[in-house]
Amino acid sequence: MSREVIVVGGGAGGPSAAAEAKRRDPSLQVTMIDMGRFVSYAACPMPYYIGDVIDDYKKLVARTPEKFEDAGVQVILNTKVEGIDTTKGMIFLGGGEAMSYDNLVVATGSVATLPDIPGKENKGIFVLKNLEDGIGIKEYIRANQCRSAAIVGAGFIAIEMGESLKRLGMETSIVYRGDLPVKKWDPELSAVILGELTKNGINFMANHSPVAVEKDSHNGQFLLTDKDKIKADIIIFALGVKPNVTLARDAGIAIGDTGAISVDSFQRTSREEIFSAGDCCQSYHRVSRKWVNIPLGDIANKQGRVAGLNISGNKTEFPGVLGSQSFKVFDLEVAATGLDENEAKRSGYDAASTIVWGKSMAPVMGSGHRLGIKMIAERGTGKLLGAQSVGQGGAVGRINTLSACLWSGMGLDDIIYMDFAYSPPFSAAWDLIHTAAQVLKRQL
Amino acid sequence: MSREVIVVGGGAGGPSAAAEAKRRDPSLQVTMIDMGRFVSYAACPMPYYIGDVIDDYKKLVARTPEKFEDAGVQVILNTKVEGIDTTKGMIFLGGGEAMSYDNLVVATGSVATLPDIPGKENKGIFVLKNLEDGIGIKEYIRANQCRSAAIVGAGFIAIEMGESLKRLGMETSIVYRGDLPVKKWDPELSAVILGELTKNGINFMANHSPVAVEKDSHNGQFLLTDKDKIKADIIIFALGVKPNVTLARDAGIAIGDTGAISVDSFQRTSREEIFSAGDCCQSYHRVSRKWVNIPLGDIANKQGRVAGLNISGNKTEFPGVLGSQSFKVFDLEVAATGLDENEAKRSGYDAASTIVWGKSMAPVMGSGHRLGIKMIAERGTGKLLGAQSVGQGGAVGRINTLSACLWSGMGLDDIIYMDFAYSPPFSAAWDLIHTAAQVLKRQL
Repeated sequence: MSREVIVVGGGAGGPSAAAEAKRRDPSLQVTMIDMGRFVSYAACPMPYYIGDVIDDYKKLVARTPEKFEDAGVQVILNTKVEGIDTTKGMIFLGGGEAMSYDNLVVATGSVATLPDIPGKENKGIFVLKNLEDGIGIKEYIRANQCRSAAIVGAGFIAIEMGESLKRLGMETSIVYRGDLPVKKWDPELSAVILGELTKNGINFMANHSPVAVEKDSHNGQFLLTDKDKIKADIIIFALGVKPNVTLARDAGIAIGDTGAISVDSFQRTSREEIFSAGDCCQSYHRVSRKWVNIPLGDIANKQGRVAGLNISGNKTEFPGVLGSQSFKVFDLEVAATGLDENEAKRSGYDAASTIVWGKSMAPVMGSGHRLGIKMIAERGTGKLLGAQSVGQGGAVGRINTLSACLWSGMGLDDIIYMDFAYSPPFSAAWDLIHTAAQVLKRQL
Repeated sequence: MSREVIVVGGGAGGPSAAAEAKRRDPSLQVTMIDMGRFVSYAACPMPYYIGDVIDDYKKLVARTPEKFEDAGVQVILNTKVEGIDTTKGMIFLGGGEAMSYDNLVVATGSVATLPDIPGKENKGIFVLKNLEDGIGIKEYIRANQCRSAAIVGAGFIAIEMGESLKRLGMETSIVYRGDLPVKKWDPELSAVILGELTKNGINFMANHSPVAVEKDSHNGQFLLTDKDKIKADIIIFALGVKPNVTLARDAGIAIGDTGAISVDSFQRTSREEIFSAGDCCQSYHRVSRKWVNIPLGDIANKQGRVAGLNISGNKTEFPGVLGSQSFKVFDLEVAATGLDENEAKRSGYDAASTIVWGKSMAPVMGSGHRLGIKMIAERGTGKLLGAQSVGQGGAVGRINTLSACLWSGMGLDDIIYMDFAYSPPFSAAWDLIHTAAQVLKRQL
């Protein structure tokens, strides 16, 4: 008898696991089940779909259910998995049906946070989590000819959505309880991001907390904050996500300190026949050496592949994460890797940091954009802990370079004379990475 | 008595050494001597000066002689150092004057190769090595209203010059004895570079060898090749450089296998009181573990600083090079790091390689440019040996990321799941680096 593999969740980690397991061991009977009507879609580009950069949501679908079926993976849509009996190796579907498994992959993703305020059930209120949300937002804007939008939150998804809605010609506000957007980044860098938002006509409402949503028949919908009343034909809550672990927890699968499913380096949960991947599970952070929950699509893809490889008998270790991330806001690249200062402190590091500003080209070239790098290192050892960058070009490449440095645990001394591909259109002879490492090293 | 430090050569390595030594130990008496009328200039941007991107050559000068004097470094211009008496610790200047030193830095740079063909003494013939050459080319073009140019050679300086002269509106030919430009890069990538040259109206004359330069009073200057006769009001030979070691060799300082001055990791020559930095000396290649000679400005700057630090008593090791380099050709970024396949084979590696093509953005974004990465690794161990990339954006950042991987000696397994700052405007969820590493790993 061939082994039965069931994958619960069709976002990113699940499809990767299903496809990889089946590809590596065609004798496996692989079934993937999702609550919605889509599987294997790219969630990260959804703001660009809403903003009409991507015209058709079908383009977000990496692999259709038909493609999975062609590859021998059975796909069950619009179906909720209600429970797992780990002793019997069974799952129970919404309709009462039961299915048995030899290996199970829990890839239940995350759920968006929605504050409990009056009016939150209104039709013009959305979160942006799955593809249905993305399609719903786009349809709502079109059907209701929305002219104004409020986005609550100031993480990178809020900012990407702000840009998209502004590009659609809407009066767009970002409403945030803090001073500055994207709190992972240093205030000095966040101020540059805020400048980019403001320059492009987005109304950034700092230190506002949403209190209620109101509708009146004449004037449409409003977001009430503790300080103001904002006309918003559509309101999007982008307040982050929480790992969706109900199914796993109810089945007795161990949940980690972060609230996400505890896994080992092979994506195995506390039960050796059950794997997990993606937003719902933890990842080992190579710098802090803690298990963290970082809900990002590229991590989900990698973990899914590792789970699939292990299920197919190809023992593979997922080597962990650095917390690398990036986003674009109008003409600005923003990126970060490793720990920010708060995370470093919470991880027990005595951290020092510096921010240096330079140009994306050699200064002699007379053009090139302003580029800033923040670098964080441990006092005493000089170990690199993290980095952040903003600039019109050159930020992501440099953060990825520093990701590679973090990956192997380098210190500032390793970086100061590192050999980069120098040419005047791309950097000064001493790259801004060199300069930052030198300045920070002197400071230690 | 304060120690006397003499630096011979004012290009890039020399000024770095002089400035750093004096800054770290103000008691040192530091003198820098150069044959020409400039010191401390950026040679790499010279094509952009000639091409009018940079309007004034003074902008190429990082630090004027006056600035050095203000910092306490004596500068002697237009003066050739004729000899060194290492036993006495003396140097001899062109005018017969002698100067004594406690520490000497030989930073005599390199000399451009000029083929021995009839007509090579013509006024309209240039090499591009030092700032005087750059100024001379620009003045000649203006004074003679040059309308046509031939560049002999197809390395990155030849290509940068081709772009600059074309942008000045000249009929521009690149004449090369090989098939494709920049032989360090794989033919598949060089073909893309050739396409960029051709698309922008540069006449790439492959498989042509220069035979003579002819002038006639009516029609001006021509470059004769073995196959053709090319009208060229100005001819630039960009055939590479050789380390300028005459002074060092005559003084009995050891010369390495590459023909450049042999140094240790502290930039010390075979005589412990004499240091060397820049194009005239060798560098340790971290991948091949051989001593090489790579004449690049950023390396010279770093080695000069290390020499200056060691002279000032701050013991510092230069950690070696990877051969990272890049250039821009019209809209294309081109970069490489580590060993190419030929170098890998010569270094005893059983090398395998792959080339993958993708987009600079997530494919779903529908735009983004084509980007190619070649990755080279050792069979058996999977150790990364080198990488090359071309694309309109994203190539240099990725090569620098892979430089950081090479720096710590990573293998493909380290790279396959590396955590990069993913976002759809900058890459697919699996970056092209991941894809290349995966494809190459399967191939091994």
